Amino acid sequence: MDEEERVEHEDREDEETGVSVAKITLEELQDILNRKDRTALQEVFLHVPNIDIAEVANELEPADLIFIFRNVESNFTADFFDDLSQQTKEDLIAAMTNRDLVQLINAQAVDDIADTVGDMPANLASKVLRAADKDMRKDINALLKFQEGTAGSLMTTEYLEFLDSNTVEQTIEVIRERGKDAETVYTIFVRNRQRQFVGTVDLDDLIFASKDQTLAEIMNQDIVSVTTATDQEEVGQMFRRYDLNALAVLNDDQRLVGVITIDDAVDVMTQESNEDLARMTNMEPTDKPYMELTAWENAKKCIPWLIALLILGTFTTLALNRLESQAVFTRLPVLIAFVPMLMDTGGNAGGQTTGLMIRGLAVKEFGPKQVLKIWFKELKSALLVAATVASFVFLWLLIEQYTGIVNNIGPEGLLDGMNVWNGQCWTAEFASYAFRNAGLVSLTMLVAIIVSKSVGTLLPMGAAAIKKDPALLSQPLLTTVMDVATLMIYFAIAMSFHP
Amino acid sequence: MDEEERVEHEDREDEETGVSVAKITLEELQDILNRKDRTALQEVFLHVPNIDIAEVANELEPADLIFIFRNVESNFTADFFDDLSQQTKEDLIAAMTNRDLVQLINAQAVDDIADTVGDMPANLASKVLRAADKDMRKDINALLKFQEGTAGSLMTTEYLEFLDSNTVEQTIEVIRERGKDAETVYTIFVRNRQRQFVGTVDLDDLIFASKDQTLAEIMNQDIVSVTTATDQEEVGQMFRRYDLNALAVLNDDQRLVGVITIDDAVDVMTQESNEDLARMTNMEPTDKPYMELTAWENAKKCIPWLIALLILGTFTTLALNRLESQAVFTRLPVLIAFVPMLMDTGGNAGGQTTGLMIRGLAVKEFGPKQVLKIWFKELKSALLVAATVASFVFLWLLIEQYTGIVNNIGPEGLLDGMNVWNGQCWTAEFASYAFRNAGLVSLTMLVAIIVSKSVGTLLPMGAAAIKKDPALLSQPLLTTVMDVATLMIYFAIAMSFHP
Repeated sequence: MDEEERVEHEDREDEETGVSVAKITLEELQDILNRKDRTALQEVFLHVPNIDIAEVANELEPADLIFIFRNVESNFTADFFDDLSQQTKEDLIAAMTNRDLVQLINAQAVDDIADTVGDMPANLASKVLRAADKDMRKDINALLKFQEGTAGSLMTTEYLEFLDSNTVEQTIEVIRERGKDAETVYTIFVRNRQRQFVGTVDLDDLIFASKDQTLAEIMNQDIVSVTTATDQEEVGQMFRRYDLNALAVLNDDQRLVGVITIDDAVDVMTQESNEDLARMTNMEPTDKPYMELTAWENAKKCIPWLIALLILGTFTTLALNRLESQAVFTRLPVLIAFVPMLMDTGGNAGGQTTGLMIRGLAVKEFGPKQVLKIWFKELKSALLVAATVASFVFLWLLIEQYTGIVNNIGPEGLLDGMNVWNGQCWTAEFASYAFRNAGLVSLTMLVAIIVSKSVGTLLPMGAAAIKKDPALLSQPLLTTVMDVATLMIYFAIAMSFHP
Repeated sequence: MDEEERVEHEDREDEETGVSVAKITLEELQDILNRKDRTALQEVFLHVPNIDIAEVANELEPADLIFIFRNVESNFTADFFDDLSQQTKEDLIAAMTNRDLVQLINAQAVDDIADTVGDMPANLASKVLRAADKDMRKDINALLKFQEGTAGSLMTTEYLEFLDSNTVEQTIEVIRERGKDAETVYTIFVRNRQRQFVGTVDLDDLIFASKDQTLAEIMNQDIVSVTTATDQEEVGQMFRRYDLNALAVLNDDQRLVGVITIDDAVDVMTQESNEDLARMTNMEPTDKPYMELTAWENAKKCIPWLIALLILGTFTTLALNRLESQAVFTRLPVLIAFVPMLMDTGGNAGGQTTGLMIRGLAVKEFGPKQVLKIWFKELKSALLVAATVASFVFLWLLIEQYTGIVNNIGPEGLLDGMNVWNGQCWTAEFASYAFRNAGLVSLTMLVAIIVSKSVGTLLPMGAAAIKKDPALLSQPLLTTVMDVATLMIYFAIAMSFHP
């Protein structure tokens, strides 16, 4: 490698964030491939993280990718392949000779290749399965059976399991021999003679232990496990709560059948928090990066929710329309101006509570059975919020009216220009309208916030009680319920204020 | 341990989730402590994960906790202490003798104890620092200097660093001797003679290597690092992107000064996604679990946002009030009924885009410099969404009016009961009103969605460009901007429809 090349791949520190990492551009990589410069290519894989090369390499032709796989060591290219986009993987596999493919596939982690195969067209999937050796094919097929989003679909079958009577020395020996094929050797799983999972040993404890101790003596017995059917959200929670490096997955007979590693758990946590964010913004979640979404794919994630919410919004239209029929607006036109503000505050107050509930339910801090306790807790807080905000609104509306931000309107019609800037003093009559308007809006706010925080508690709790994702239904339903409720409260109070 | 005891701590599998973990209740633990049953207590720590014991133990008296720390091995109690709540830790430290405290503190990880001390009243903090041995006190003080939310505040100073010329055998020897004090031995950090950080070695590679190889030969050179000032959100991203177990933290001279481990990174990711969720629901984020929030603490997180949004909402009031002055509502009362639906859809459509932007900016998929490219991409999708939703709305409003869900109202006033259920046929005049209303709302929707998705792109991009958290400002500002914009569009179109 010449000196010029070295400079190109040198660590580039981002001044602003302090992050330092070697990078490569598409032009640099393409140039190396055009020159068929093996040494420079190997240098790139030595210094630049796989994911950064893969993001650039997604733009390459299959022939260039094949050159990479033929000329870079497989301990680099295994992760590199996994980091390519699904489309690139498929194009590459379609273009590869069987001989290259056999090498590529058998160097992969079985759980990664199973995920890739699961999303492939049938002809490519069978090309991959034919290339896999017998054991791997069996494992891929076993993993493909599990439903997406379960622990079974996340786990790998490449883990190390030892008998509890093994000594530390025996164990280290086996790890040296067979450990390279395992997805992780940092956590070793221990079973007893009845094939029951009884403990784990951390690799560092193995190194600190003396050679003739048995695994039973040094293993951690505060073990946690899930079954193949456990939901992946639960899996993420377990890693977070118990600071795990790897998690045991048991079958229905309580035998160890697989292991989930921390890197897959981190991906799940990211996916779950993306889903929560999408649900909170009324979109269908997607795993695809934004830049890879076509306009139509993007639109398809937006449209169903907008239309569903629109149909739900009909109830608001209905409510306003009924009030119209009673000529409320023509009699009390000033009230209209405050409707959006009231509706927004109602929705916002409830949304805060819903957010707390969704989070609390997700991390299992409480469950739907504690609904009364939680409701009571939220009510206490709602009273404080409502009293504070309503007091503020009362003052704010007086100021608005006094300064003419809002034209004060009495029952007789507009009192335009009746404000401090025009040098006008408030008459007793004028002031009484202003106070009445402020009182009406403020009282509505008080009731609306309390109702809203109750609804914001009960909707997610109800969704959880009937085993639905609390984030899925709560937010859209809340807006609709609160829009209608706020209107009803507002006009009920208005009617008694201005009979 | 008698048989009865064993049954109590046995693994309890949750039928529904498949999660299996040994649990203990407060009553069981209190009972063991009342009996001063050392053996049973040690059994509990052997089988039940620390965090599960800690959650229960937060309810115990300090004297009971001191009994635990005196009678359970420190390799169990170190993590257990860290999992206690801050309040419990403080009460315990206040009640402990100095001798007990010296034992407790020096068994802790230095980064954990620094976090705890940082949140403590000064008198307790100095009690802790006096109990720490000299090296630890120096490290705690060094860590306390870093600002919360930076890599410096997350890192530990307890890591293993080796010279690149060391052999594998030498390295394993040192790990055996000194590894127990390190926070992780799974990743070993390598420096050259110039004290520059040049590589990492995974513990498994060390085990697979032959004894006389040097670290330089087997180390990973595709290294990434951050500085002590790097934002913690960035740190979470690095772990996720590069599948790290531990991340190197450098000082301004590019020397290694600390290491962040995966367990702390997972906590950061959780904290960041909680913050995003809180921001999306217009609340101040909090690290405190929901059940520990008092009503007033909870209210304090809600009130500022509600009031801020309310003040912003004044613009909507203002807009409606100005329209009122022109007597728009009294002339066209039917229009009012559709205002909330239009505003909600405008806000929802923009919110979807804002959510995508917040996520894309957070994971660095794109940056504020690409604003034009992204805006164009969103516009293409917005056109599809707007056309689809507007067409639907047109049909939906015709149906609503035809079936009498909404009373059709012409310029002359209410046309109550003019619907299919009353056996009334639509006259040509009636139909023309219905089509005109549907057309007006549908056209408004078309424009509003396109505007809204533009605003939803530009607000977060703008926030990112001026280095503000995109989630902090975008959502609330969006609602206000879109409420006002939708109103303006609606009535501008209405005026040209019904001049």
